[in-house]
Amino acid sequence: MSKTALLARLKDLAGQVDRAMQEDLGTIASPRLLEVVRHAIFQGGKRIRPLLTYTAARLINESPPQDTWQLAMTFEYLHAASLLHDDVIDGSDFRRGKETANRIWGITPVILAGDYLHARAMTIAGLVGGPECLAIIGAATAAMVEAEFLQLQTAQENNDDEANYFEVLRGKTAALIAAACETGILHGGGNQSQREALRTYGTNLGLAFQIIDDLLDYLGDPGKTGKAVGNDFSEGKMTLPLIHALNHCSRIDRQFLLALLMAEPAERKKDLEKAAAVIARAKGFDYARGRAENLIEEACQGLLIFPENQARELLFGLAGYVLARDK
Amino acid sequence: MSKTALLARLKDLAGQVDRAMQEDLGTIASPRLLEVVRHAIFQGGKRIRPLLTYTAARLINESPPQDTWQLAMTFEYLHAASLLHDDVIDGSDFRRGKETANRIWGITPVILAGDYLHARAMTIAGLVGGPECLAIIGAATAAMVEAEFLQLQTAQENNDDEANYFEVLRGKTAALIAAACETGILHGGGNQSQREALRTYGTNLGLAFQIIDDLLDYLGDPGKTGKAVGNDFSEGKMTLPLIHALNHCSRIDRQFLLALLMAEPAERKKDLEKAAAVIARAKGFDYARGRAENLIEEACQGLLIFPENQARELLFGLAGYVLARDK
Repeated sequence: MSKTALLARLKDLAGQVDRAMQEDLGTIASPRLLEVVRHAIFQGGKRIRPLLTYTAARLINESPPQDTWQLAMTFEYLHAASLLHDDVIDGSDFRRGKETANRIWGITPVILAGDYLHARAMTIAGLVGGPECLAIIGAATAAMVEAEFLQLQTAQENNDDEANYFEVLRGKTAALIAAACETGILHGGGNQSQREALRTYGTNLGLAFQIIDDLLDYLGDPGKTGKAVGNDFSEGKMTLPLIHALNHCSRIDRQFLLALLMAEPAERKKDLEKAAAVIARAKGFDYARGRAENLIEEACQGLLIFPENQARELLFGLAGYVLARDK
Repeated sequence: MSKTALLARLKDLAGQVDRAMQEDLGTIASPRLLEVVRHAIFQGGKRIRPLLTYTAARLINESPPQDTWQLAMTFEYLHAASLLHDDVIDGSDFRRGKETANRIWGITPVILAGDYLHARAMTIAGLVGGPECLAIIGAATAAMVEAEFLQLQTAQENNDDEANYFEVLRGKTAALIAAACETGILHGGGNQSQREALRTYGTNLGLAFQIIDDLLDYLGDPGKTGKAVGNDFSEGKMTLPLIHALNHCSRIDRQFLLALLMAEPAERKKDLEKAAAVIARAKGFDYARGRAENLIEEACQGLLIFPENQARELLFGLAGYVLARDK
């Protein structure tokens, strides 16, 4: 599938998700609640999670039940709810260059709007998808919260444990994407081994996406990513290239990196190029890239149990896109 | 049922709820998450909502399914989640004389713990109670958020509209209590008219409880309530006695009250006795008391469709307790 064809197909599916959400938001009575929710949802995202749900259903069922769109959109709601609460927690004023809801309206309506989306998502998911879907989503939501706590607990320590990195990532990012995939095929009528393939696909896609993000932070073109190089390192964020380097560089390089991580952000910004050279020398970037590639490889391998069809093609395309993206 | 017997029975039921929650909290992995959740839940509350669920089920089924306790406890989770988020929103340092979780740990773990309880409650409610229970709870949660927005929207205006007062109260307080009652009888096997009776019982109990609270704020004995007299008025809160007075006092009294409501809190504190005299003269307290009595009367009338049994006795007892309480 060509990149142009893939993007066109994604846009078409995103339009379906948006229509389902537009219709559902009609049940909101308060004008302000509606305003905050719309601000959170209609920011031009790609609707990756819902379209994974729908496409997973289509792997085994060319015409999935019409309510698959309702089930699918709940993942956009859950994602938006978690971003709303994250922005309150971080006191963020901007997200993707746009003012955050908490900056515009203060924290009260934003916490409440997050709660609304969260409750609405779980209600619809349970009603449309049934108890198994609800259990999957409940577990994913719990995993997201647990991962936040794990991160809070280990963030202060400049934790260079790769297993910890993956555990946090699995909960924070991958669990919801995996749930989006698994509930989709479940709703389409999938069996246990099909569900497992989709869970792996979603998990690995989420992990690889974040690892590529880690890489772009050091190696990306700011003109394309829209972000300054080395943001993560300046903030002292323990991403995979850095973690690998800390565990595989010389003792003297390790001392250098650790000293920088204990220093002020301005220090790190100043010595960014040196740090990146140390990471490169320790093969931190190569290793991260390799991990992402292996994850995507495994994700796609699992899909080979399905017949060749448009949905499978799209999932392969998405997986390839995660590795190829430069922004 | 004597007050002593009622309180003993309530305590016994609360113990069952606590056991169910203790067991369920065993699934939490993060020590900090567990700590925050335990702080939120085990503060010595009466577990009114869960015991309404269980007792409602027992109206028609002397031995409700064992998992009724699981369904019941989800209402304590939802209640605790909403208090956690409320305290963050209000920046409250104390609740019932104890330090709030946000004062102890900051807002991050508290927002997240609220999200956890919320998700956990909806998952269990859906799995144990089935789709109808989930729909009832989803609607109640949406009503809670909508009511918060309605209150935000109308709070600035010193709104003396009684219908608005009841609409906010219905969503903020009564909706969850009504859902606790209705899902209980539904889980016990109740039919439509039985469900309706329990919905009315729960709604009216919640409304009456808050109206009595409004009254105790003006007329209560601080030695018993543990709160200073006239707190609500000092804060400019539009409670039922005041709203009634504004709509039924002389023009000159109304000017007096409105001027005070526009003034600083210290002014209102100073003129509290005068204001209370105006409210009394306009029969604001009598009216509120009468409304609470009528609501409780209607709540109990509806229960007459059930046979005389211990559960019905308990619900009558609770209703009477709401009117008789002095703290």
